Amino acid sequence: MIRKKVNGVSMAKENFGLLKDSPISAPLHSCLLGRFVEDRFVYRQTFIIRSYEIGPDKTATMETLMNLLQETALNHVTSSGLAGNGFGATREMSLRKLIWVVTRIHIQVQRYSSWGDVVEIDTWVDAAGKNGMRRDWIIRDYHTKEIITRATSTWVIMNRETRRLSKIPEQVKQEVIPFYLNRLAIPHVENDVDKIDKLTDGTAERIRSGLAPRWSDMDANQHVNNVKYIGWILESVPIKVLEAYHLTSITLEYWRECRQSNLLESLTSTSRTSSATSEGSDGARKRSNPDLEYIHLLRMEADKAEIIRARTEWHSKSGD
Amino acid sequence: MIRKKVNGVSMAKENFGLLKDSPISAPLHSCLLGRFVEDRFVYRQTFIIRSYEIGPDKTATMETLMNLLQETALNHVTSSGLAGNGFGATREMSLRKLIWVVTRIHIQVQRYSSWGDVVEIDTWVDAAGKNGMRRDWIIRDYHTKEIITRATSTWVIMNRETRRLSKIPEQVKQEVIPFYLNRLAIPHVENDVDKIDKLTDGTAERIRSGLAPRWSDMDANQHVNNVKYIGWILESVPIKVLEAYHLTSITLEYWRECRQSNLLESLTSTSRTSSATSEGSDGARKRSNPDLEYIHLLRMEADKAEIIRARTEWHSKSGD
Repeated sequence: MIRKKVNGVSMAKENFGLLKDSPISAPLHSCLLGRFVEDRFVYRQTFIIRSYEIGPDKTATMETLMNLLQETALNHVTSSGLAGNGFGATREMSLRKLIWVVTRIHIQVQRYSSWGDVVEIDTWVDAAGKNGMRRDWIIRDYHTKEIITRATSTWVIMNRETRRLSKIPEQVKQEVIPFYLNRLAIPHVENDVDKIDKLTDGTAERIRSGLAPRWSDMDANQHVNNVKYIGWILESVPIKVLEAYHLTSITLEYWRECRQSNLLESLTSTSRTSSATSEGSDGARKRSNPDLEYIHLLRMEADKAEIIRARTEWHSKSGD
Repeated sequence: MIRKKVNGVSMAKENFGLLKDSPISAPLHSCLLGRFVEDRFVYRQTFIIRSYEIGPDKTATMETLMNLLQETALNHVTSSGLAGNGFGATREMSLRKLIWVVTRIHIQVQRYSSWGDVVEIDTWVDAAGKNGMRRDWIIRDYHTKEIITRATSTWVIMNRETRRLSKIPEQVKQEVIPFYLNRLAIPHVENDVDKIDKLTDGTAERIRSGLAPRWSDMDANQHVNNVKYIGWILESVPIKVLEAYHLTSITLEYWRECRQSNLLESLTSTSRTSSATSEGSDGARKRSNPDLEYIHLLRMEADKAEIIRARTEWHSKSGD
């Protein structure tokens, strides 16, 4: 009765193929997946916010937003016809056992959606330096077309066996370059490209230890899913802040992978750069003047190895 | 820039209303929500399994299935025009500060779906005794129409302020009776209606303590979301079982609500009823002959108060 154990990732490709040739109507297909717009440079998918995707304050959580961004990105790769046998890897990458790994992601939320809201997500890619790729997203309210979230991320290529970084092979460049679009979801002056300071036992104001990844936090690669880290980062933020403030900006710097056996520690501190940037010095990014700003560190409990550094900005809900 | 703090639940109703009157095409509307079939007795919604809804074995997790069942049920209530201001409550219930609470749910999985699979979920309701309601679901493979999951649940009415159980008021009965359908997703002989024995420190083979609900586990009612319990129940199942077996059946008996401040303990033991039922005695339910059968208890760590009892059945993946 039970389906044979299969390689779910390659199944996905077959299923998407099946979907295209199947009797599903075009609107249903476009609704369940997404579609290319703007001469195939932009991939667009529509989502309705579901009952289980909202948090205690009844709006879509940051985890939900990141899940939807990931889903749109993967469907973009699949629909482009480039998909190999990995999560977002192209065929030429799969032949070489190469995978994409995210190094940094920055998300700015103007407004959180509620249960039943319909959002439209646009995504596209561009070069990032010589060996990286940038992926941007814009989330709009489907009805008003108001931009409610902007996001940008940087990716590099890693060998999935040696776990070492790799240059982008010429054949992979040839696959992806036709999709590159020179457009920024977040303008340079508003982007967060600042280094995130490392927190230590000495500098952290709050430390939550003993955080244990659950079996259900693992993804198809037996690693902790990127998105799950957000939950642990928030575990060292004071509950009063979680209750009374909106998380309006997050920047994640990914340093190391994490498996289920690892116990984690979450460190949080008020950011010391908060006042400095208000001087408006040359080159300083245009800040959104948050009410609170924190930096965070997620690290292994055993050897204190860094997994993620993060910066978050918060706006008071009462000041809406 | 940030939206005013709103009652997300009543927002939801407005948004569904908006959706109906909006320029969204009928197929998109039907795809994002669902539609009535069979003379409005059955509500049907189609889902594609997303990249972040699959677990380490690359198939949709039990949490994902339960999320999709919940979503279909809530959209059923909303689309019926009965929705009040609560999660699934009718208007007459909302007027009386009454809410539905689940007392038992039983799910039988024939086959788990992979990333990109399209599933079609049917749901309907019926009376359960004098003061309860039964809600059933059937999940089919969208392409083959093969039934891959069956589920049934029992609900009673509670006053959301006093937290006491209530009879179904006559006005509420009048609202829901027109939707009642006398059909069973799981035939009587295959249903799990057996009492689940209470585990204790003496009878449990495995105990995992110190399980801490995260902020992100809370739902819009500031309670731990029903579905999240599954993750903690599985925390006391041996990892070898999680890796080598499919969870093919789960029965949950809900005993008590849980808030974020509560630390939890997860207890698991091999079921003692496993061999007894193979005798095929009169009245014993027709079992699916699982390879493993467990009973579980999720309780408060402080006062050992019971939150959930559960029974699970497992089939070896290698025996597929």
